[in-house]
Amino acid sequence: MPALARFLPILQWGRTYNGTLLTNDLVAAGIVTIMLIPQSLAYAMLAGLPPEVGLYASILPIVAYALFGTSRSLAVGPVAVISLMTLTAASSVAPPGSAQFIAATLVLALLSGVFLLLMGVLKLGFLANLLSHPVVSGFITASGIIIATSQLKAIFGISAAGEAMPALVTSLLGNLADTNMSTLVIGVLSTAFLFWVRKGLKPLLTRLGLPPRRADLFAKAGPIAAVAAATLAVVLLDLEERGVATVGDIPQSLPPLTVPLFDAGLWQQLAIPALLLSVIGFVESVSVAQTLAAKKRQRIDPDQELIGLGAANVAAAFSGGYPVTGGFARSVVNFDAGAETPAAGAFTAVGIAIAAVFLTPLLYALPIATLAATIIVAVVGLVDLRTPLTIWRYSRADFAAMAATIGVTLLLGVEPGVIAGVALSLALYLWRASRPHAAIVGRVPETGHFRNVKRHTVITDPRILTIRVDESLTYLNARWLEEFVLETVADHPQARHLVLMCSAVNSIDASALESLEAINHRLADAGIKAHLSEVKGPVMDRLQRSSFLDQLSGQVFLSQDEAFSNLIRRGEEDGPPQKDDLWMARGMI
Amino acid sequence: MPALARFLPILQWGRTYNGTLLTNDLVAAGIVTIMLIPQSLAYAMLAGLPPEVGLYASILPIVAYALFGTSRSLAVGPVAVISLMTLTAASSVAPPGSAQFIAATLVLALLSGVFLLLMGVLKLGFLANLLSHPVVSGFITASGIIIATSQLKAIFGISAAGEAMPALVTSLLGNLADTNMSTLVIGVLSTAFLFWVRKGLKPLLTRLGLPPRRADLFAKAGPIAAVAAATLAVVLLDLEERGVATVGDIPQSLPPLTVPLFDAGLWQQLAIPALLLSVIGFVESVSVAQTLAAKKRQRIDPDQELIGLGAANVAAAFSGGYPVTGGFARSVVNFDAGAETPAAGAFTAVGIAIAAVFLTPLLYALPIATLAATIIVAVVGLVDLRTPLTIWRYSRADFAAMAATIGVTLLLGVEPGVIAGVALSLALYLWRASRPHAAIVGRVPETGHFRNVKRHTVITDPRILTIRVDESLTYLNARWLEEFVLETVADHPQARHLVLMCSAVNSIDASALESLEAINHRLADAGIKAHLSEVKGPVMDRLQRSSFLDQLSGQVFLSQDEAFSNLIRRGEEDGPPQKDDLWMARGMI
Repeated sequence: MPALARFLPILQWGRTYNGTLLTNDLVAAGIVTIMLIPQSLAYAMLAGLPPEVGLYASILPIVAYALFGTSRSLAVGPVAVISLMTLTAASSVAPPGSAQFIAATLVLALLSGVFLLLMGVLKLGFLANLLSHPVVSGFITASGIIIATSQLKAIFGISAAGEAMPALVTSLLGNLADTNMSTLVIGVLSTAFLFWVRKGLKPLLTRLGLPPRRADLFAKAGPIAAVAAATLAVVLLDLEERGVATVGDIPQSLPPLTVPLFDAGLWQQLAIPALLLSVIGFVESVSVAQTLAAKKRQRIDPDQELIGLGAANVAAAFSGGYPVTGGFARSVVNFDAGAETPAAGAFTAVGIAIAAVFLTPLLYALPIATLAATIIVAVVGLVDLRTPLTIWRYSRADFAAMAATIGVTLLLGVEPGVIAGVALSLALYLWRASRPHAAIVGRVPETGHFRNVKRHTVITDPRILTIRVDESLTYLNARWLEEFVLETVADHPQARHLVLMCSAVNSIDASALESLEAINHRLADAGIKAHLSEVKGPVMDRLQRSSFLDQLSGQVFLSQDEAFSNLIRRGEEDGPPQKDDLWMARGMI
Repeated sequence: MPALARFLPILQWGRTYNGTLLTNDLVAAGIVTIMLIPQSLAYAMLAGLPPEVGLYASILPIVAYALFGTSRSLAVGPVAVISLMTLTAASSVAPPGSAQFIAATLVLALLSGVFLLLMGVLKLGFLANLLSHPVVSGFITASGIIIATSQLKAIFGISAAGEAMPALVTSLLGNLADTNMSTLVIGVLSTAFLFWVRKGLKPLLTRLGLPPRRADLFAKAGPIAAVAAATLAVVLLDLEERGVATVGDIPQSLPPLTVPLFDAGLWQQLAIPALLLSVIGFVESVSVAQTLAAKKRQRIDPDQELIGLGAANVAAAFSGGYPVTGGFARSVVNFDAGAETPAAGAFTAVGIAIAAVFLTPLLYALPIATLAATIIVAVVGLVDLRTPLTIWRYSRADFAAMAATIGVTLLLGVEPGVIAGVALSLALYLWRASRPHAAIVGRVPETGHFRNVKRHTVITDPRILTIRVDESLTYLNARWLEEFVLETVADHPQARHLVLMCSAVNSIDASALESLEAINHRLADAGIKAHLSEVKGPVMDRLQRSSFLDQLSGQVFLSQDEAFSNLIRRGEEDGPPQKDDLWMARGMI
């Protein structure tokens, strides 16, 4: 039973469900439903799909997530960045809007659902770690810029295409002469109104005496007001006659049952984009879920989240949707509206289903420029130009990864952008891991402490060379270790003992063990004994399973102090050291 | 001048060159030349190329390496594993032996030369670290098995093809009926003789009173004896009439000037194989060079080695050769023969050039089965079945990477094998890096030491939770850190202070900083203060460049002891703790 409950979190919260929770969830669902409708239409059109697909993608996926997900506040559905990635991926197969294009988006949803489920079952959620914070932040900023730019076409009432900035801007500028003035007026007014709602409405309502939380919810309902006003304007002023593009006929229907095409070639073509989509979606969703869970001291389980999101995407693939994930904006609405359990999500799904069946005729005259305005206002919030600055100050390597992600995404598109960011982050990480910090150490006078000879005034003995490596020994730094030790020894021709101080070595893998063996043998060839000191318990246990300790020409000392005293004593037995043989390291000379 | 000398090591050793060195180098070159001739022919045929290509690949590449390389003993030329990889890569373009096939091998040599040069100039030698010891060892063992199996066709005098074991074995068994008995007799006798030379000749010569080093050199000359005897047997017994395949006509010529085809499609097709070739060749060569350099307490510079090997491969591409690297067998011969400087290599090149012009007619009747025997005897030494056992005992993760490499190489071929090994090693490494060791610690009674509560009898305070992370904080474990800290706090509802003990944290990257900020804020939301202790100097310097320390709800303590005492004192000021509030951790209860 507990095992089942882990895979079906509903069994946990479902047992304690009661009337109060139901009321809160119903109220939240009502609010969220109203807000999600324009957002869902807009994102579907951003993805190059008919608007109703956005509604379909907000119904069954929410229910699937409610069954399998662990966050109590996450709202799953179409989101901006994933919509852009869907557009990019499916465009490589067929022109946006075509039947093959729609078929490709269903395959994308299915594949990314399957990838997410697989990662969840195989506990591969850690792979999302490869997306470092600077890469994700840079990617979202660049995507926001591309999305906002792409929506300008609807604001101006012109056509434009392109997945990255160069093509997009060229195409926009080339068609600027075709601008439809009525559309432009609606677009600019909608945008201006929505920006004002975002910045100015909440303070105004608070000043008018509304409690802050309610003021906030009203402000979030701004898009609904814009949608209603713009639709009325189109109808009353007969703007369709003047060339204002509207949403038009939307079928009044529950989500259709769709079966994604099984076509090996298509699957192969979409596999990498679907993988990127699922990982980006997962990272976005988990960070939203974690932020919201922490506010209530709740927990989410990232591996189970993979299963929840995977189920949601598979549900989208079979119900006429497209790839979905947990969105920041919609989840925050859900949280602020007081959703207590995933049941709120299920009620939202019912609400949107009702809208899909009964309310779509009302949307006929909704101008596309207004939907574009809601997207622009939403994604401008994603563009973050302050983080690059703080990262630049903190770490040049992280900044390089971020700059590469932003630059490549803007210039070449979303997929190359993510790949470039991940590859550069990993390369920089591996580069650093392959040459860890290490120091020659000596004893701090009258103590048992050993410190870097370059930074402290310490006592050393020319016959005893002690190297401290501040990193676990792995295959990434094994070759470096050989080079570093052998070069250091070559620089200290008087050395007769080498002590490797292992106080910071948390593990030694097979490659590093091989290097230690090589070091031991090569030093023995040169008449130098190799010793270890301060080896941690688990590392020692493992070394005892190899033949290294038998081969070691020297000893393993419990502490570095013991190693140093013991080896000095041994040197004195061989004959007292010359006076100038005992020297002080740089700090003292 | 020193900068130039770094890129042209000849300027260093060339200045001190003298008569003694010249004599030693000339003697070594004479010995090596004789030994390299059959080896070069054999490896060229293994690579699916005409035998003379092996000679050409042993002339100019040696000279190029002598100019740019840093090892004084490394002998560059055709080697077994690289020959197999060349066969595999070029076979994907055209059937072995065809003109396009030969053209493809020249492109492979050029591309891998360019990759090596690029890696050298950009100091990317560390990328070779991605090939862990278990992966390289597994790859060489599996390649040895494939090579030995593929040579059985020449021993039996039948045809067979296939790049991996399943196809190879099927094809051998299918053609076994065509076995040529005369060829089989020569093949088996040659193989048996060479195995005996390897194991039995040196002890015999030593017993007969030869000094060990000379006995060793004689034993290494065994292949020459086999070649001479087998050639004589073919001539005297007229075995060609009986269907014994021989080397046949070899053009008497210096290496021809060849210009690798510039064909974008071909280059693209061969880019990945060439990259794998160059990295495998580099790893093999560097480990040989390091082993030999250490014996004489000399140094090699891996980044400069990339340039030396790159130059050698470019030279091969323009002089009718094919991909080359520093080989173990030929380098050891060179070393044992007493080569003192890279000039020995240059003299060897002259020797082989003389052979290519004057001696090739003598090789006309050399049976291919004897060449196959020299290959089999050489590669059986590469097959190492003991290492998998020792690695299994030492580390299951390393064993998994090795087993994957061996399995995939045998079943699917050399390229998938290397890629699988590298990918699995990296995935296992990242997995471990993404969940480092961490412990809740308490104070060892009457000391200032803090240890894991699970392993030691320590004093803790329920209001003060101290977590020690034994790893640098990076983007790979940033998300884990958030989860671990927040879950641990959720498990300790009485906690009012969290201390993160940073004694093992060597660096904090931007992602981890972001996670620390998130932890700080979320804990503050829950009424818990976050503190740091034992932050290392360089880490602290960097933190001061961010706004984290200003946001931190708690303090940074120099030592954990100070943190614990200070926070306990503060708790007492708030009111004395309940008696059962101060508790002893597991070890004591």
